[in-house]
Amino acid sequence: MTDLASLFRPDLPAPADIGGPTRPFAFVGGNNDPDSVPFAGLAEAAMTVMTREGRNLATYNLGGSALGYEPLRSFVARSLKDRAFTDCNVDDVLVTSGSLQGLDLVNDALLSPGDTVIVEEATYGGMLSRLQRRGVNYHGVKVDANGIDTDDLGQLLERLTAEGTVPRYIYTIPTVQNPTGTVMSVERRHALLDLAHTFGVAVFEDDCYADLLWGADRPPTIRQLDQADTSRGNVVVYCGSFSKSIAPALRIGYLVADPPVIAQLLGLKTDAGTGALEQMVLAEFASTHFDDHVDQLTSTLEARCAHMVDAVRREFGSSVTVDPPKGGIYVWLTFPEGVDTATMVAGAAEVGVEFNPGAGWSADPVWGSRRLRLCFGNQSPENIDRGVAALADVARASSSLV
Amino acid sequence: MTDLASLFRPDLPAPADIGGPTRPFAFVGGNNDPDSVPFAGLAEAAMTVMTREGRNLATYNLGGSALGYEPLRSFVARSLKDRAFTDCNVDDVLVTSGSLQGLDLVNDALLSPGDTVIVEEATYGGMLSRLQRRGVNYHGVKVDANGIDTDDLGQLLERLTAEGTVPRYIYTIPTVQNPTGTVMSVERRHALLDLAHTFGVAVFEDDCYADLLWGADRPPTIRQLDQADTSRGNVVVYCGSFSKSIAPALRIGYLVADPPVIAQLLGLKTDAGTGALEQMVLAEFASTHFDDHVDQLTSTLEARCAHMVDAVRREFGSSVTVDPPKGGIYVWLTFPEGVDTATMVAGAAEVGVEFNPGAGWSADPVWGSRRLRLCFGNQSPENIDRGVAALADVARASSSLV
Repeated sequence: MTDLASLFRPDLPAPADIGGPTRPFAFVGGNNDPDSVPFAGLAEAAMTVMTREGRNLATYNLGGSALGYEPLRSFVARSLKDRAFTDCNVDDVLVTSGSLQGLDLVNDALLSPGDTVIVEEATYGGMLSRLQRRGVNYHGVKVDANGIDTDDLGQLLERLTAEGTVPRYIYTIPTVQNPTGTVMSVERRHALLDLAHTFGVAVFEDDCYADLLWGADRPPTIRQLDQADTSRGNVVVYCGSFSKSIAPALRIGYLVADPPVIAQLLGLKTDAGTGALEQMVLAEFASTHFDDHVDQLTSTLEARCAHMVDAVRREFGSSVTVDPPKGGIYVWLTFPEGVDTATMVAGAAEVGVEFNPGAGWSADPVWGSRRLRLCFGNQSPENIDRGVAALADVARASSSLV
Repeated sequence: MTDLASLFRPDLPAPADIGGPTRPFAFVGGNNDPDSVPFAGLAEAAMTVMTREGRNLATYNLGGSALGYEPLRSFVARSLKDRAFTDCNVDDVLVTSGSLQGLDLVNDALLSPGDTVIVEEATYGGMLSRLQRRGVNYHGVKVDANGIDTDDLGQLLERLTAEGTVPRYIYTIPTVQNPTGTVMSVERRHALLDLAHTFGVAVFEDDCYADLLWGADRPPTIRQLDQADTSRGNVVVYCGSFSKSIAPALRIGYLVADPPVIAQLLGLKTDAGTGALEQMVLAEFASTHFDDHVDQLTSTLEARCAHMVDAVRREFGSSVTVDPPKGGIYVWLTFPEGVDTATMVAGAAEVGVEFNPGAGWSADPVWGSRRLRLCFGNQSPENIDRGVAALADVARASSSLV
């Protein structure tokens, strides 16, 4: 009996769980504070843009550029200038359906199966799973309080080159690194660029969390440092998102690069445009409210982060280390040698706690196995206290933790 | 000097034109009537849902199922029942970022390079370009006033099987076929299903235009005829869209299939969800206004279609045939042997006319070369008159057309 599922390719990923209500202490994913969603402002923006330009929805891309809604690209360019010292023209910006589509487009442009890329030793799990599915190899580089360790990066590039391998890109989350919450220093940014140009390697700069920064001044983007040096070409493609600064369920991100690069990436974006209503509403809201909103959100997150760091130190004691992040929505915990945080998942779930085991966020899953990530963005202080205490009980029960 | 573009894969598609303002007589693409966009209703829906559920935007997938916003899936299920006699549960529906993402997901699940699929001889150009980019072969089957010619389909399946090739799917647009505007009869639907089961081939049913129907009663979907026969498995995956019924710049489509198939397709959808604001606004609007809106839009399009058919017959005379479509937004013109409509593109552009040459919408580009597609959805009656007259002048000047 023929059934559609029996006709599928044999090499597909596992069927997905359709999801649903989460556990009470869901310290997972990139979720954010419900009370900080500017829904009234978004509703007002929707009313304004629909009244002014709603007829344009009758035409693909609103009858304008396939790069995205022009006022949104204009806002992105202006905001990069104002907030990150970055020169950007409206046609350097390609609006994407979340930054994840941006990752896919850049990967489509640069990667073939068997290729090699460089990532930070702890990095975004969704990028690692993407690379795995493409059959792309990756190597991790150390990250410390100043971001990627460029000495380690240089040694890795030397070694790979000696083996005849030129990595396709260096993927970095320089400002509010995911998951470590560190910020790459300007010196390291320059050193990374010098290495990229010396070895002929592209740089993929993922700045999705950069607006949520409180523990450091925002440095210029790597993209900016690259384009400011006119003695050589530009090797950086930059990606950003409104998922963290406004709301993750809105799926609007963007890529920034030189126009010939953008035109090539656009040729790979065959979705007939990113949703116009979300683009219009975001542009209308952000053009007047973005900075105020981000100030409010950041201050909420800073307080919540301090609460989370205190709770972790109180409940786990000195055997677990946590370096306070300089922004964002995560803390990254390191357990003693011999602990495997994956063994805590089931026990945690039983007491209503979800967390991201470190192996999935690490280039080397063995290195990552004694680490874990907690999101505090969507949790009340009370939930943080209760959830972290429950998780610490589970950790003690499932390991040699004192 | 290393430059990012120089590091791209050598086999990428051409860089894309970023687009911009179109010509006055843009009879291209799937654009629709600006005056029919229900923008006031969409704005009101946005206000309602943001006030009621805006906080949920803080969580990916609004904290609910990864299949999409539940009220939207519920509307799709209800609407398929009411409008297309199709039994559908809310968990049979996967919301996609436009039906184009639906095409990509189904292709990801079923196709490998070198595979073979079956399409209608005239079909959606965006599917053909997708198949070309994947290195998938396709064969066309005749289409007449009753849809796909199942005798021709049976012969093709026999021949391919004899050659050792089992096609991966039969792609059909049964209700308001693109570009011919025909509707497949119920008898043909049954015959197609029998062939699909006999030869072990999936059916990909693309119903994107099915709501815009005036020249025929809407038949049950092929999906429904398949699932109603419990003596065998189900081989149909169904896709639909709001692009034609509401607005193309909104990017919301959906796939419908059995839950195990949907779970597998969801595993390939790694975008962290389709834009929630568009889903929420559409669900809110459609649940009370969809049928009324579609009635109004269909009646506008029917009048415009008659105007277009009259203009074509008046301006082109009897040497060009056009069969009035039973719905949708296109007419499909057939020129005499020896005419190549691609040769008219430049001349048409000079007089402000854009059209889709038939080769791009045809499995066999030679067969398609004397055909072309005109969209009337976004054009006023006056523009139709002027544009078709101008195009007829160009056709006469560039060919042996009398």
